[in-house]
Amino acid sequence: MKIAIYGYGNLGRGVESAVRQNSDTELFGVFTRRSPEKVNPVFPDTKVFSAADIVNYKNDIDVLIICGGSATDLPEMTPALAADFNVIDSFDTHADIPKHFANVDKAAKKGGKVAVISVGWDPGMFSLNRLYANAILPDGKDYTFWGKGVSQGHSDAIRRIEGILDARQYTIPVQAALDSVRAGENPELTTREKHTRLCYVVAAEDADKARIEHEIVTMPKYFSDYDTTVNFISQEELDRDHKGIPHGGFVIRTGSTGVDGGNRHVIEYSLKLDSNPEFTASVLVAFARAAYRMSHRGDCGCKTVFDIAPVDLSIKTREQVIAEML
Amino acid sequence: MKIAIYGYGNLGRGVESAVRQNSDTELFGVFTRRSPEKVNPVFPDTKVFSAADIVNYKNDIDVLIICGGSATDLPEMTPALAADFNVIDSFDTHADIPKHFANVDKAAKKGGKVAVISVGWDPGMFSLNRLYANAILPDGKDYTFWGKGVSQGHSDAIRRIEGILDARQYTIPVQAALDSVRAGENPELTTREKHTRLCYVVAAEDADKARIEHEIVTMPKYFSDYDTTVNFISQEELDRDHKGIPHGGFVIRTGSTGVDGGNRHVIEYSLKLDSNPEFTASVLVAFARAAYRMSHRGDCGCKTVFDIAPVDLSIKTREQVIAEML
Repeated sequence: MKIAIYGYGNLGRGVESAVRQNSDTELFGVFTRRSPEKVNPVFPDTKVFSAADIVNYKNDIDVLIICGGSATDLPEMTPALAADFNVIDSFDTHADIPKHFANVDKAAKKGGKVAVISVGWDPGMFSLNRLYANAILPDGKDYTFWGKGVSQGHSDAIRRIEGILDARQYTIPVQAALDSVRAGENPELTTREKHTRLCYVVAAEDADKARIEHEIVTMPKYFSDYDTTVNFISQEELDRDHKGIPHGGFVIRTGSTGVDGGNRHVIEYSLKLDSNPEFTASVLVAFARAAYRMSHRGDCGCKTVFDIAPVDLSIKTREQVIAEML
Repeated sequence: MKIAIYGYGNLGRGVESAVRQNSDTELFGVFTRRSPEKVNPVFPDTKVFSAADIVNYKNDIDVLIICGGSATDLPEMTPALAADFNVIDSFDTHADIPKHFANVDKAAKKGGKVAVISVGWDPGMFSLNRLYANAILPDGKDYTFWGKGVSQGHSDAIRRIEGILDARQYTIPVQAALDSVRAGENPELTTREKHTRLCYVVAAEDADKARIEHEIVTMPKYFSDYDTTVNFISQEELDRDHKGIPHGGFVIRTGSTGVDGGNRHVIEYSLKLDSNPEFTASVLVAFARAAYRMSHRGDCGCKTVFDIAPVDLSIKTREQVIAEML
C-alpha cells in the first residue's frame, strides 16, 4: 500500500515515521506547497514533490494522508483531493464536521474514492469511545477531560501578547473532578472545575510581568473561564523542559442498569501521549489501511471512524484477529 | 426491533432489563428449557415460552440473544439456532472461538442469517480495544488485567471442596503491576505478579479449616499459581456483603513512535462494573441492533465485534452521531 503525505509539518513528519512501523505500508513521498528542495525530510530517502504536481501521481498513490490545519487548509484541500485520491484527514473543528463531511462526500463520490475525515484521537479514538459507551449504557452521562498536554492554540494566543518572546501552555484535568466522575457521583462540572491552565512564559527583559499575567488570565474564551497559573522562565528553560508536545485525556461514561437502575458502571478510555502529532499520525496510518481496503471493495464516499469495521484497521487477517485478539 | 431471550439465568435477566433501556427494542419473550410456568421473569409482562417451540416463532423475532454457558450450551445452541434466527451469543472460551465461528458461520450462511458471537466485555469490548490499540501502535506491548471482580468458575471450584457450604472468589489486579505498566516500564509479569485471589468461605461447623485453606491455595490451575487469601465468614456475612456480581478490568497497550522510537504512549481502557451479567447484557443488546441492521442490508454469516462498524451499534442515525459524538 503506497501512502503519500500532503503537507509537511509535525503531523506529516509523524506520518513519515509511522509508515515505517507498518510492514504493509510504504511511503511514496511528501507533497509540499513550499519549494521541495527547501524541505528536509526526517528520513533521507523520503522523496519530496511539489504539491502543485500531485495529480500527475494519481495512479501511483493508494492513499493520501492530508496533514493540513483545520482552520483554513483542510476545508479546501480535502474536497479538492478526494476526487482523485483515497484520502484521510484529521479535521478537528467539531462544530464544522457536518459541513466538511458533505463537501468531501460529494467530491469522493464523484471520483469513486474513499475519504475518511476527522481521524486522530479527538475527534477519532475519543469519538469511538463515546459512541461505544453510549450504545452500551443508554442511561448515563459522558465526560471528556483533556491533558495533561500542550495546547498549540493557547500557546499561540499567549505568544501574541506584547512583551512575550515565547510561551507554552498546558491543559491539565482537575484530579478532584476526575475522581468524582470515576466514583460515579455524576457531578455537574463547570469549565473551571474540569481543567486548569498552566503557562510557561518567556518575557522580554523590560516587559511588565504583572501586565502580561493579567492579560493572560483575563483573556476571553482562552483563559478567563479557567484557573490559570503563569510561570515566567528563561528561553533556555523553555527549550530544555518544554520542547515536547505531550497530550492525552480521558473519555468516561458512567451509567446504570438493572430493574431499578441500581447497578452502576464506569467505562473509561484514556491516552497518555509523549507526542500528540506522532500518535495522531499513527491513527491516520491505521485508517489509511482501512480506506485502501474499502476502496478495493468498491466502496466510495466520505467516511468517519464510525463507519469503519475495526478488522479493516489491522495488519492481520480476519482469521488472525479472531484467533489472537478476540 | 423484536428481541427474544433464549436461556434464562443472570444474563437473560440482564437482557430483559437492558431491552427496556433502549427505545428501539422490544422484548418478544423468554425461551426456557425449563417448564415455562416455573420461570418467574423480572418484569410481570414478560412472556415465557418453551425453548422446544422456538421455531414456530421464527417470523416474529428479529434477533435472538442466546444466554447459555460457553462450556456445553453455546457450542450446540448457536449453530442450531443461527439457521433460523439472527443470533447473538457471548461465547467466551477464547481458545475455541475459531471452531465455534466456523460452525456458526456455516449455519448462518445456510439460513441467510446474521450471527454475532463472543459479544460482551471479554471477549467483546476488551477485544476491540486490543485490536484498535495494536493497529495504532504496531511497536508495543499488550496487558490485560481482570478485576476486582467475582469469578464464577473459581467460586464454583471452591464450593466443591468437602466441608465448604458456600464461597465467593474475587480476582484482584496487583496495583504495583498496573502502576508499572502505566509508567511504560514494559514489565514481564508472571501470573502471580498480575493478580491475587481473595476467597470468602462459609465452612461447615465441624470442618477442618486448615485443611480447607490448604486445599484451596494449592488447587492446580485455579489457585496454585496465585497468592491466595482465604477468609472464613458466616453465611449471613456472605449473603450480606458478597451477593453482588461485580467485575471489570483493564486493557493497556504501551508503545513507541518516532524516528528512534523515543516517544512513548499509553492507551488504556477500563471497566468498573457493579454487575457483570447486566453489563454483558447491555453489550449484547447493542450488538443485536447491529445484527438487525446488517441482516436488513442482506448481509449474512458469522460476525464478531471486529466486523461491526460502530455506527451500527448506536440508536442514533449516522448524521446524529457525526454531529453529536465525533
